[in-house]
Amino acid sequence: MRIFNNPDQSGHNPRDEFYRGQRVPCFENPTRADHVLQALAAAGAAVEAPTHDSAAALAQVHAPRYLAFLQDAWRQWLALDAANANLQPFPSVWPVRTLRSDVEPGNFIARLGLYSMDNGTPLAAGTWAAAKGGADAAASAAHALLAGERAAFCATRPPGHHAGPDFMGGYCFLNNAAVAAQALRLGGAQRVAVLDVDYHHGNGTQAIFYDRADVLFVSLHGDPLTEYPFYLGHADETGAGEGAGFNLNLPLPAGTGAAAWLDALEVACQCVAAHRADALVVSLGLDTFGGDPIGGFGLQQGEFARLGARLRRLGLPTAFVLEGGYASAELGHNACHVLEGFEAA
Amino acid sequence: MRIFNNPDQSGHNPRDEFYRGQRVPCFENPTRADHVLQALAAAGAAVEAPTHDSAAALAQVHAPRYLAFLQDAWRQWLALDAANANLQPFPSVWPVRTLRSDVEPGNFIARLGLYSMDNGTPLAAGTWAAAKGGADAAASAAHALLAGERAAFCATRPPGHHAGPDFMGGYCFLNNAAVAAQALRLGGAQRVAVLDVDYHHGNGTQAIFYDRADVLFVSLHGDPLTEYPFYLGHADETGAGEGAGFNLNLPLPAGTGAAAWLDALEVACQCVAAHRADALVVSLGLDTFGGDPIGGFGLQQGEFARLGARLRRLGLPTAFVLEGGYASAELGHNACHVLEGFEAA
Repeated sequence: MRIFNNPDQSGHNPRDEFYRGQRVPCFENPTRADHVLQALAAAGAAVEAPTHDSAAALAQVHAPRYLAFLQDAWRQWLALDAANANLQPFPSVWPVRTLRSDVEPGNFIARLGLYSMDNGTPLAAGTWAAAKGGADAAASAAHALLAGERAAFCATRPPGHHAGPDFMGGYCFLNNAAVAAQALRLGGAQRVAVLDVDYHHGNGTQAIFYDRADVLFVSLHGDPLTEYPFYLGHADETGAGEGAGFNLNLPLPAGTGAAAWLDALEVACQCVAAHRADALVVSLGLDTFGGDPIGGFGLQQGEFARLGARLRRLGLPTAFVLEGGYASAELGHNACHVLEGFEAA
Repeated sequence: MRIFNNPDQSGHNPRDEFYRGQRVPCFENPTRADHVLQALAAAGAAVEAPTHDSAAALAQVHAPRYLAFLQDAWRQWLALDAANANLQPFPSVWPVRTLRSDVEPGNFIARLGLYSMDNGTPLAAGTWAAAKGGADAAASAAHALLAGERAAFCATRPPGHHAGPDFMGGYCFLNNAAVAAQALRLGGAQRVAVLDVDYHHGNGTQAIFYDRADVLFVSLHGDPLTEYPFYLGHADETGAGEGAGFNLNLPLPAGTGAAAWLDALEVACQCVAAHRADALVVSLGLDTFGGDPIGGFGLQQGEFARLGARLRRLGLPTAFVLEGGYASAELGHNACHVLEGFEAA
């Protein structure tokens, strides 16, 4: 299995986020990647830098104006006031129902709100480079599969699956899983499946592919009635237009234990198998771990190994993209359990 | 002119708001109403409590589920934790593009985000009673006109014109101007005009009547490219469906002075006159005052008197509803200048 890191991840290091209305230290921080890379090194895994540019895939999964804003946002923030280098910009108004998203405001905070779904996804000086590095890792994983590799893992942060066609959210800026899937399509794969096992629904990935039949999206996650992202991820969302029937959500109540989670995983895997995909992208969130400070499932080491083994049995070239997981110290071990389960199967 | 107060306004007294991303003391606070009532008393005006219930009009301008949430929100917040009595709830995630607004989340903060367009509209223990009292004042003003009164003034807060069909925003919870217009329609007025002269575009009022021909909405305001509410209030918004042609926005650049503002007022008044309305509702924001900490126009006492005089010449039964204006000490005097200009004309 080839493993790609993100050399620029540590540049995305905002101090605080808003979590359910309160300002708290960021759950999603550079130590997460450090722990994953340490665990991979301890397991003897070779880690390489990204080999491919994600620009072509990015241009097909995100809106041009959103990419342009994200790339330039920190410069715009500093242009308002040099002292902003030590402050964090947060949006405070959003274009919900009856408000317009088609006109880009001249005010920076309003522009930030236009391209956000929350105020829990703070920018830092190195956010664009970090996000782009992660997308490049995802594109590199896709190209590894296209070149015949059985599997690849992107040991990257920030995560990506909440990032929509034209907005950031849930610690995510560029949708790495969508980039991997689109890069596979651009490279010749006819059908791709994305399986999202993060505790939180991958609303961005779903939205990006919702009207497409070539990319199946399947997710098992905490019920959005009580869990982030709250406004998407219900069982009745099955795709639209040409994509009708190519979206499957399996929401599970907070507190769901291993047995019920593995049952849902089996349903998800059978749906993936029925898609007859050329390749699989796994949004590998590990906040399903019993010790996670945000997630509400109770998975342990054994379940992560079983997850890897079950995915192996799908028999598909598989790109793993790291998503959430906020028990930093255990994150690397949990990731390794999945990968080892996959390789040992 | 009959003048209605809001006996419950002081119960809406949150401590902080988020303004362009930073947590700051609330600009919109009970002292605003105190200053207005003091100035009215000094001018010898008689002030009365609301005489009519706004429930029937409210049910036609706001969604039932939004009204139900707003009425119960503080109880729900306390039910999470009794210690919340000393804390302020703020939303932190919003259902923007591709996210759903049709399913009400079980999580309180997510529900608050569903029914909000910003995080600058904080709740307090007495918010519902204060908002309802303001709506009752607006309904009372409408009934005064229906009973033959030439004019009425609602000396109320919180303001209302940013509150949309199913969301709060911009310090607004219930749309008092929309309530007044709807109460006039329910009482037999065939055509109503709403003229919004607040510094900020009345996005909520526009949205509520956007597809209706019976209620004209005309607004002159700071250009939303740089001014709140940012995502509505452009000149190309002219109404939809049956309402096509019944919405007029006159955005003006921040820094616009008295002469250009009076020119725009003339355009607005001619549009109102052409509507051949039975009655006029004026969203009277006074944050166009040169000393306002949020507004960006430079109006002074003389302009406020001219505003009142010009509105008088429309020859319509007129209900004034207080909206913004954050130079608290001068707010009452500025309001009185408008009313005196109207009465002297």
